[in-house]
Amino acid sequence: MTEHTSHEIDVEKLETSKINAVNFDNLTFGRTFTDHMFICDFENDEWQTPRIIPYQAMTMEPSARVFHYGQAVFEGMKAYKDKDGKVWLFRPEDNYNRINKSAARLAMPEFPKDYFFKGLTKLLQIDSAWVKPGKGNSLYIRPFIIATDPAISASPSSNYRFMIICSPAKAYYTDKIKVLVAEKYSRSASGGVGFAKAAGNYAAQFYPTSLAQKRGFQQVIWTDAATHERLEEAGTMNVFFRINDTLITAPISDRILDGVTRRSIIQLAEDNGITVDVRPITVVELKEASRNGSLKEIFGAGTAAVISPISAFEHGEELFELPNIENSYADSLKDNMLNIQHNLTEDKHGWRYGI
Amino acid sequence: MTEHTSHEIDVEKLETSKINAVNFDNLTFGRTFTDHMFICDFENDEWQTPRIIPYQAMTMEPSARVFHYGQAVFEGMKAYKDKDGKVWLFRPEDNYNRINKSAARLAMPEFPKDYFFKGLTKLLQIDSAWVKPGKGNSLYIRPFIIATDPAISASPSSNYRFMIICSPAKAYYTDKIKVLVAEKYSRSASGGVGFAKAAGNYAAQFYPTSLAQKRGFQQVIWTDAATHERLEEAGTMNVFFRINDTLITAPISDRILDGVTRRSIIQLAEDNGITVDVRPITVVELKEASRNGSLKEIFGAGTAAVISPISAFEHGEELFELPNIENSYADSLKDNMLNIQHNLTEDKHGWRYGI
Ligand SMILES: Cc1ncc(COP(=O)(O)O)c(C=O)c1O
Ligand SMILES: Cc1ncc(COP(=O)(O)O)c(C=O)c1O
Repeated sequence: MTEHTSHEIDVEKLETSKINAVNFDNLTFGRTFTDHMFICDFENDEWQTPRIIPYQAMTMEPSARVFHYGQAVFEGMKAYKDKDGKVWLFRPEDNYNRINKSAARLAMPEFPKDYFFKGLTKLLQIDSAWVKPGKGNSLYIRPFIIATDPAISASPSSNYRFMIICSPAKAYYTDKIKVLVAEKYSRSASGGVGFAKAAGNYAAQFYPTSLAQKRGFQQVIWTDAATHERLEEAGTMNVFFRINDTLITAPISDRILDGVTRRSIIQLAEDNGITVDVRPITVVELKEASRNGSLKEIFGAGTAAVISPISAFEHGEELFELPNIENSYADSLKDNMLNIQHNLTEDKHGWRYGI
Repeated sequence: MTEHTSHEIDVEKLETSKINAVNFDNLTFGRTFTDHMFICDFENDEWQTPRIIPYQAMTMEPSARVFHYGQAVFEGMKAYKDKDGKVWLFRPEDNYNRINKSAARLAMPEFPKDYFFKGLTKLLQIDSAWVKPGKGNSLYIRPFIIATDPAISASPSSNYRFMIICSPAKAYYTDKIKVLVAEKYSRSASGGVGFAKAAGNYAAQFYPTSLAQKRGFQQVIWTDAATHERLEEAGTMNVFFRINDTLITAPISDRILDGVTRRSIIQLAEDNGITVDVRPITVVELKEASRNGSLKEIFGAGTAAVISPISAFEHGEELFELPNIENSYADSLKDNMLNIQHNLTEDKHGWRYGI
């Protein structure tokens, strides 16, 4: 554990916390925000003094490049509180590295590591009452960077704003979900920005996902744009397929987000003696495995839901239902992850990061 | 010509115009804005009363979906002033239709036609002093829609803001440009959002374009993401290739923006007896045509520069230079377009729209 000091951050505290007005038993994901936020502006070619200020609306020029050219990247991570009241992050270094990878692909400046960790730590210390204990409860943390230059020429901005905002969350996607395998629409192209948490990747999925939702599916599983034959990932989750007793997940490429949950699940599965095959998996193979009974489970893996079991998928106007099985990998791996995140079990890979 | 009334728009005028502080001989594209802007908010499932107010910064929640998920679309069009001081638009109905096509693909509500035209007309009437006469001068008009919902769940926003801001412009890209043909990076996938003026499409191009610029190329010509064999379009321009006396341009698809300039150039070329082939054109064909001397011209076509002649392209680490020719199609078609836009010639297709 490294020492976290915060002498370089300007802090302005809210006089009276808003927390008593919040009903923590009835939270809509991403609508309630904590008392404070972290801001750091990039101007004159450098990141300025970071600030923590009361959560509030901000002033933007209508010409700010983020509005016109989508020059924006983000991260999603969570803080957990254990039964002694200590707050933990899960592999935050991975999120730090990824936001800079995303930023580089969108021609944005990297954010300094000490600012990221000092800002995050200080913010979570100040707003720690918003992290509720109990398995499944968490504080969702949203770091993001937006282009603020007031100029509409189609070129990279000179000015940026890095922010962290936090929203208390309960576990979601409690029910199993049904998914549609993409046959026409696509999420990203080779040589594109699919591997980055680039803002524009998400809006691009809204319409095809809404078409799927109208037909009773909660999510789309994207296939490769060139052939629609290989299964890639879901909207905000990587995807695992269990055929017999082997877990299969698509390899990382420039089209797929390199998920922290995915990486952790692969490790935990191996720790538990489950074989994991990281290799391309085709729609044809999946349908065949479903037909011959070797397909046991499909689940999504991502920070928001940790693991989301899938009950059925549709492709070629045919619905394939997953069997109901006991001792599912999804359940045991999810439990394993939650126990590590909430400091209920040993952390042999050093994934927890104490605040 | 339809009557433009504006009784439904709330207008608040700036007390003293900022125009005298502007040096119109020294404008950087997209940095200077006129006195007023048009705003219309979408709330409770409908577009509210539109307003014209002094151009100013606005307040946004840090959680506004546009910052996180790039749910934003835009248009680019121009107003021209003729020698009698009358202001004209060029095929604005095409821009109106296109912003709604873009909006639909990003799961955003369509903007009503009468609001668009009344707002645009009223705004240009109020700020007409900012449209300078003279061929090459124009007022660049930027309609755009952004998702304003203060919630970071990855789903379409319920609230939106439609705006029009305007920026005086001189002609740009005066010199011929050198372009790089994309071999690794790509702009859009089949089944994606390339045909929409979606904000995220532009940020995705910044980094590959900056790599090209470091090597002395001004723009990238994108190829299809699946094979990189077919030539598609440039960052903000469609592309035309003249082989012998035929103009070739790629067909519109869901990867390519259906440009108003492209469409107009095709028509004007035909009017002038030039054969236009709208068909896929490959890199192999282009290089072969360059080697055997049949490739006479390449030019980009888009609202900003009208036509941008290209002097050379690189592919496979080989540079292909275009010949210097007299009576280029680029020059004559550009002149033809500018004359129509500035009301210097007959408008036989009814493209001009008087304000
Ligand atoms: C497209 C996409 N895939 C996968 C994931 C899962 O990544 P992580 O496990 O790091 O949350 C996310 C993010 O949440 C995502 O946006
Ligand atoms: C990607 C792209 N291609 C082509 C064009 C040209 O379209 P238009 O002629 O309508 O300006 C534009 C827009 O300006 C564009 O953004």
